[in-house]
Amino acid sequence: MSLIGRHLIDPNDLTLEETQQIIDLGLKIYKNPADYADVCKGKILGTLFYEPSTRTRLSFESAMLRLGGTILGFSDANTSAVKKGESIADTIRVLDDYADILVMRHPREGAPKLASQYSTVSLINGGDGGHQHPTQTLTDLITIQNYKGKLENLKVAFCGDLLFGRTVHSLLKSLSRYPNMSFILISPPELKIPYHLKDEILHNHNVEIIETNSLETYMPEIDILYMTRIQKERFFNEEEYVKLKDSFILSRDKLENAKKDMLVLHPLPRVNEISYDVDLDPRGKYFEQAKLGVYVRMALISLLLGVIEPC
Amino acid sequence: MSLIGRHLIDPNDLTLEETQQIIDLGLKIYKNPADYADVCKGKILGTLFYEPSTRTRLSFESAMLRLGGTILGFSDANTSAVKKGESIADTIRVLDDYADILVMRHPREGAPKLASQYSTVSLINGGDGGHQHPTQTLTDLITIQNYKGKLENLKVAFCGDLLFGRTVHSLLKSLSRYPNMSFILISPPELKIPYHLKDEILHNHNVEIIETNSLETYMPEIDILYMTRIQKERFFNEEEYVKLKDSFILSRDKLENAKKDMLVLHPLPRVNEISYDVDLDPRGKYFEQAKLGVYVRMALISLLLGVIEPC
Amino acid sequence: MSLIGRHLIDPNDLTLEETQQIIDLGLKIYKNPADYADVCKGKILGTLFYEPSTRTRLSFESAMLRLGGTILGFSDANTSAVKKGESIADTIRVLDDYADILVMRHPREGAPKLASQYSTVSLINGGDGGHQHPTQTLTDLITIQNYKGKLENLKVAFCGDLLFGRTVHSLLKSLSRYPNMSFILISPPELKIPYHLKDEILHNHNVEIIETNSLETYMPEIDILYMTRIQKERFFNEEEYVKLKDSFILSRDKLENAKKDMLVLHPLPRVNEISYDVDLDPRGKYFEQAKLGVYVRMALISLLLGVIEPC
Repeated sequence: MSLIGRHLIDPNDLTLEETQQIIDLGLKIYKNPADYADVCKGKILGTLFYEPSTRTRLSFESAMLRLGGTILGFSDANTSAVKKGESIADTIRVLDDYADILVMRHPREGAPKLASQYSTVSLINGGDGGHQHPTQTLTDLITIQNYKGKLENLKVAFCGDLLFGRTVHSLLKSLSRYPNMSFILISPPELKIPYHLKDEILHNHNVEIIETNSLETYMPEIDILYMTRIQKERFFNEEEYVKLKDSFILSRDKLENAKKDMLVLHPLPRVNEISYDVDLDPRGKYFEQAKLGVYVRMALISLLLGVIEPC
Repeated sequence: MSLIGRHLIDPNDLTLEETQQIIDLGLKIYKNPADYADVCKGKILGTLFYEPSTRTRLSFESAMLRLGGTILGFSDANTSAVKKGESIADTIRVLDDYADILVMRHPREGAPKLASQYSTVSLINGGDGGHQHPTQTLTDLITIQNYKGKLENLKVAFCGDLLFGRTVHSLLKSLSRYPNMSFILISPPELKIPYHLKDEILHNHNVEIIETNSLETYMPEIDILYMTRIQKERFFNEEEYVKLKDSFILSRDKLENAKKDMLVLHPLPRVNEISYDVDLDPRGKYFEQAKLGVYVRMALISLLLGVIEPC
Repeated sequence: MSLIGRHLIDPNDLTLEETQQIIDLGLKIYKNPADYADVCKGKILGTLFYEPSTRTRLSFESAMLRLGGTILGFSDANTSAVKKGESIADTIRVLDDYADILVMRHPREGAPKLASQYSTVSLINGGDGGHQHPTQTLTDLITIQNYKGKLENLKVAFCGDLLFGRTVHSLLKSLSRYPNMSFILISPPELKIPYHLKDEILHNHNVEIIETNSLETYMPEIDILYMTRIQKERFFNEEEYVKLKDSFILSRDKLENAKKDMLVLHPLPRVNEISYDVDLDPRGKYFEQAKLGVYVRMALISLLLGVIEPC
């Protein structure tokens, strides 16, 4: 099925084949960006950020500008008609005339899904509450593909806040569709992945899950270590935040027993869950990951707009 | 008189002939947008929004981008030099060097007029307090022209907050210049149009005005029903707002006695003054109206910059 | 040494020769802007404003757009990852992938310097606290060059808040490197230039300094009168602000004894330190100065990106 005009709300809206198309095109653009510098000439990307997110917004904007397109939008719900009480449906029915493709970040789960039902142009979920963040997942996947050369037969560890972290949820759901995957879920007991997600992964897919509260036990077996921030804003009281935030910090010494070609990934921003000395270790690929995020978004935008044929 | 370099503060700054020029060009662009995709190459639109307005700002930005131009500006007075106590005159004398054409939204009535006196480039009023909003009026006019094929001999009803609604004031003033117009003004007694505006319309023009507080009485005669929001921010107390806000709601059943080719327009955003079931009625043209707003702004920008000859 | 890929944090990061290169190219672009309308095609400027500054931000954005490049960024720390506790180092290591050149405004002194150590693309300081503002200095210098034809042998007076005003500090440091300069420093005793700056200028350079609290005494000798705002936000109490803010106001009558070809400059925004009647005097060049600021930034961006050969 063609990707032209489609919405992307959940990473699993894409089949494995479609996902691979986007990743392959992303890596092709990464190698020869100049070949794609004008493919979106005359096209407008609308960035509808009902919640601030510098990184995601600018990553999309950079992607569109590098394709020769243009951008408009808002970076904050305060500058939008929200304050006047307009429904999302109405907002989208107007904004889809202003742009050729839309990306929406919203604090409320499900808002981008709802919006997509009213949009006449492709709408991409740029993150909705604790729910999904499909382009972060594509970013994670393209990074794994680039450095591991495959998306199967991998032992992937997730560490940190696995309860609220939407990037973890999205990536777990997506990776669990690939053959022969095994997941090590490292978190404090209070921040384990939600039951429904665990059920979904275990029931539907042939995967292995280990849950632990130790960052070190399984280190030597891990192919990919996905670290996440314990987000202050997810906690209800300061005290609990302070108690937990330092529990799962990756420092360089903890990498000693790790595989030489393990990847350390992180959706960023990090606060202190990865020590700065890990930046100097060649296994730390989180900044390369952020960079690849621009290229995978270039691929996604191009395919949804239909300005490039899939590889 | 040429439109090149002119300011647009009040809809009546334009003669009927100039207004028609803009509308005709807008409809021409609407039919063949690709022909105009580069006419503003190298030109910059500055959007100076001292008060947030997603819709108006993005509509202008989309218009400029679709003409091949570029945009800069601010969407919020907080990001501007206002906080440092600079006068509007000084701000404009600097910003008119940064852009080739400016649009200004300001909470204070008269601010765009003042600004235009210091600007060396065309300045468009993007809405000033409860005063004027000339490009909304052009949007309304192009929609009427498109769906009615004329701007005269019409019975136009305005419903809602007619006291504070600047879009109503601007459109009333503009329409009252056309031959053989009749206006039905539907509002609660507290929100009737200001005396001075009524006087201006009645004294200067050969028009008929009926004032009523019933949305249904004149329904069968109406050619165009212009609905408006009762803006919460115009009220001084919550209680009065709650009492009045639901008084003048258009639902689909009320349309039963209306003409088959009546147009329902609305400057948007709507809150609940038009029920969602009206969206399904072919007479509801408010989203088409928003869309045409981009094209009439493309025409306006092109003519003020002198990059296109009038039709 | 080539300017390609360099950072600009302090005006004195540039040799006199490099400064002259930028000024000369700026004046060349000013005379024939159309020749440079496409030199930055495909390049992205990232504007990272951790503190709002309409004028500086839009001046950079206008410069980049007039060179055919594009822009992205934020105008306010609220829309950035700062709130999540990310370090500047991390932010820059991501953002330098999104743009080809960066400009950073930050309330904290030294932040742009720190950022530049992590940036793989040129980073320009757009003003850091009370510290430096090198592109304002370039703006001041190009204006002096344009109207005086030289940057030496000048008697330059600075009036206003000389303690906190970073534009004064930057310009003083820069001008003190030119031959045969003399400075008249006019301020209330509480707002004299910092000792360390005075020492630096006097020890390292062959310049003359006079300190006074009278705006009129030396008026007849002055070649350039650089006025500055007494910034409300620099004061700790309202009372002291009120007492001092009107002390050093330039009105047209005070210009009577001034040289006919004196220049009055001001980094803007002004509040009331220059009376409006001075705007009508041909010596008042502060709006021309703001305009030249766009052209000198066009030159700077072009040279840092290496898209134009130096004159």
